[in-house]
Amino acid sequence: MRPYEMSLAAAAERIRRRELSPVELVDSVLERLREVEPHLGAYIVVTADRAREAAREAERSLGRGRVRGPLHGVPMALKDLIDVAGVATTASSRVRAGHRARRDSTVAARLADAGAILLGKTHTHEFAYGLTTPQTRNARDPHRVAGGSSGGSAVAVASGTATFALGTDTGGSIRVPAALNGVVGLKPTYGLVPRRGVTSLAWSLDHVGPITRTVQDAGLVLAALVGQDPPHPPEHADLTGLRVGVPVNHYFERVDAEVESAVRRAVAQLEALGARAVDVRIPMTRYLQAVQWGLMVPEASAYHERSLRTTPDLYGADIRVLLEAGALMSAGDYLRAQRARTLMRRAWARILADVDVIAAPTVPLTAVRVGQESVTWPDGTVESVPDAYVRLSAPANITGIPSLSLPVGRDRAGLPIAMQLLGRPLAEELLLRVGRAYEATRPARESAPVP
Amino acid sequence: MRPYEMSLAAAAERIRRRELSPVELVDSVLERLREVEPHLGAYIVVTADRAREAAREAERSLGRGRVRGPLHGVPMALKDLIDVAGVATTASSRVRAGHRARRDSTVAARLADAGAILLGKTHTHEFAYGLTTPQTRNARDPHRVAGGSSGGSAVAVASGTATFALGTDTGGSIRVPAALNGVVGLKPTYGLVPRRGVTSLAWSLDHVGPITRTVQDAGLVLAALVGQDPPHPPEHADLTGLRVGVPVNHYFERVDAEVESAVRRAVAQLEALGARAVDVRIPMTRYLQAVQWGLMVPEASAYHERSLRTTPDLYGADIRVLLEAGALMSAGDYLRAQRARTLMRRAWARILADVDVIAAPTVPLTAVRVGQESVTWPDGTVESVPDAYVRLSAPANITGIPSLSLPVGRDRAGLPIAMQLLGRPLAEELLLRVGRAYEATRPARESAPVP
Repeated sequence: MRPYEMSLAAAAERIRRRELSPVELVDSVLERLREVEPHLGAYIVVTADRAREAAREAERSLGRGRVRGPLHGVPMALKDLIDVAGVATTASSRVRAGHRARRDSTVAARLADAGAILLGKTHTHEFAYGLTTPQTRNARDPHRVAGGSSGGSAVAVASGTATFALGTDTGGSIRVPAALNGVVGLKPTYGLVPRRGVTSLAWSLDHVGPITRTVQDAGLVLAALVGQDPPHPPEHADLTGLRVGVPVNHYFERVDAEVESAVRRAVAQLEALGARAVDVRIPMTRYLQAVQWGLMVPEASAYHERSLRTTPDLYGADIRVLLEAGALMSAGDYLRAQRARTLMRRAWARILADVDVIAAPTVPLTAVRVGQESVTWPDGTVESVPDAYVRLSAPANITGIPSLSLPVGRDRAGLPIAMQLLGRPLAEELLLRVGRAYEATRPARESAPVP
Repeated sequence: MRPYEMSLAAAAERIRRRELSPVELVDSVLERLREVEPHLGAYIVVTADRAREAAREAERSLGRGRVRGPLHGVPMALKDLIDVAGVATTASSRVRAGHRARRDSTVAARLADAGAILLGKTHTHEFAYGLTTPQTRNARDPHRVAGGSSGGSAVAVASGTATFALGTDTGGSIRVPAALNGVVGLKPTYGLVPRRGVTSLAWSLDHVGPITRTVQDAGLVLAALVGQDPPHPPEHADLTGLRVGVPVNHYFERVDAEVESAVRRAVAQLEALGARAVDVRIPMTRYLQAVQWGLMVPEASAYHERSLRTTPDLYGADIRVLLEAGALMSAGDYLRAQRARTLMRRAWARILADVDVIAAPTVPLTAVRVGQESVTWPDGTVESVPDAYVRLSAPANITGIPSLSLPVGRDRAGLPIAMQLLGRPLAEELLLRVGRAYEATRPARESAPVP
């Protein structure tokens, strides 16, 4: 196995044991990047010289017997909404031309403290306001969308051009591209990971979290993000006593048949490990879309108010229309969405009192072809691609509960299918344990980068 | 001293010692009520039979050696926004005709658990949306306004028709009437006192709190409201080491000269007790009014949305126009107010890191004559009466910090003047300690009911 193919856990462990040098690892990833990045467009900027210098410094440290932290010497990519001192945070937008971050975001500083090495900044759908990331191609099929808005981060991790990455998630922007590229994405509980220095899309829905190739890796990154020691992996994968909620509504409606059957097989796998599947009814689903949009659209417009007035032409047409629409919304509409969210949180808390986790598809369909704008479902309904991609992920943003997306198979075209595990607020550890137990039943090659 | 004149602390203590019977106390208060209430209009409903029965039960309990709690046998009034099972919560509005609360609000239940006896429900400015309470007359001068919106509660306590009362405060509605009637009012830290079962005006600014004749009494009621044991009064009134912030801007601008001088004398009194006065500059004052209104108006309209559509004619003209205006506000205006509030909270936290409390007038002028609509200040500016009354109290609603208002003298017309003490979030105990220390320097007759 070449170094760029290693999981974060494996690479970090070998570095600590001096079986792998940080320079070797960074060089391997940069070589992989030279090979595949031209076809993928995951990165806005690759800070290769800086990364090589940091790798040499990490190696010198090891020579003196010093390990900076659990991520010592491991190369990472940061979505380009995340400030790194001295580097532009472009948000993949012309509006940010000439930008230069003065200080590290809290998450960038914590990952640096844990020893991680910045390889570069990755593409986002402009200002995170979209689900495709048009600059970037899917890691499994260049004719397919990367998903978004953290498309660059997911493609970098899936293709082996970063050992791990950070994304942000306002309606699904970590989990959707993770799902479409066959990697793991974790949207933590609202408020758990600090957002200082991270460009906002809609502050009451925004989250920062890891994109990795394995569930174990997601746990390692999360621990560094919240400033905790790395978790000890459990000895065995027994899930006896775990109640897994399986939605009888919403999450399996208007879902591609191959996606549905792969997720149901994954649930059966959890049952084989000892879990008990329990039907759950998702509350207030007819309000989900109105609440997500009712919160997001005016908050995004408020955030962009000044530059929308001074430099409207610098925004892409798709997001400019959304930002301008937000300025027309009434306070009553916004407050209605806020109040509905409060009721939804309570109703979700009630169903999560009866089950430990909820298992569901992350997205209702795999990666669509570039340029495809809508989906026609067997019931005859037509749905825009962004609406379809956000439909199953947004509930966790509205309610703030954690959601872990992980690959559970491929469709006939070879495109990845993903399941999400949803849990109670701050139940990340349980989600990661269940995810790892599932992952342990799968062949290891599934978490290697795209060949 | 007749029982209705006693402070809550004195009455409760005598009841526990069997020196005063609950029946005697309730009868004394009801007799006082028959005498003065016809001229005051503090109550919407007096639940006299229910109160007498409760007093007899309290007496029987004592006979069996059982004290229900620290407020055993003490009669209270609740602002008529606060649900009591089986009684209407009219909010002093025709909109609520035929209303009947199904269960106690949390605060009503907690006070009942502490042994307090409900005497009746008091008038509010309709739905708490105003600063005068037109149904009610000032306890010191029937030609003057009661202040609002908790006007009935303040007048009942000031006139001896309740031993204590509860009010609510969204921009000053506990402290303004407390100030204008010469009693003590405490707006606790946002979120400290549960609001379940209390009619909302604007949920991000609403608070419930005590109105009493002494600072010590306010501490007793607060303890019952938050479910804690009653505080032990400090042995002495030494304030050595206390840093009292005295605003150099905002709080002494456009303030009546007699109000200013009484408050400055009170600050000098705190210095005589050992405190050190420190100049503080209040931040972002030019945004205060816009933020208060920007938050309150749309939240109030959202709360009333349905009945404003179905029964608009049942609202009073003054509040109907405000509710209808709120429906026209944009989400952007609301979010601008929310974001400004966030910055204000941080800026206030910085000044409250340098001082322990801030001392300032509660209201810039004493009770105006009924019907007076505006104030002309010496600098030539004209201000509406509600704007003037809310100007100095609203900052504590916007920031959520606690504020204790207490009487500090009278103007030439004999009308009460009040000082407020503002503190850090959850610093109620300190505010009460400082207030008590000040109060201990004053003649006891000042906290007796209006003769």
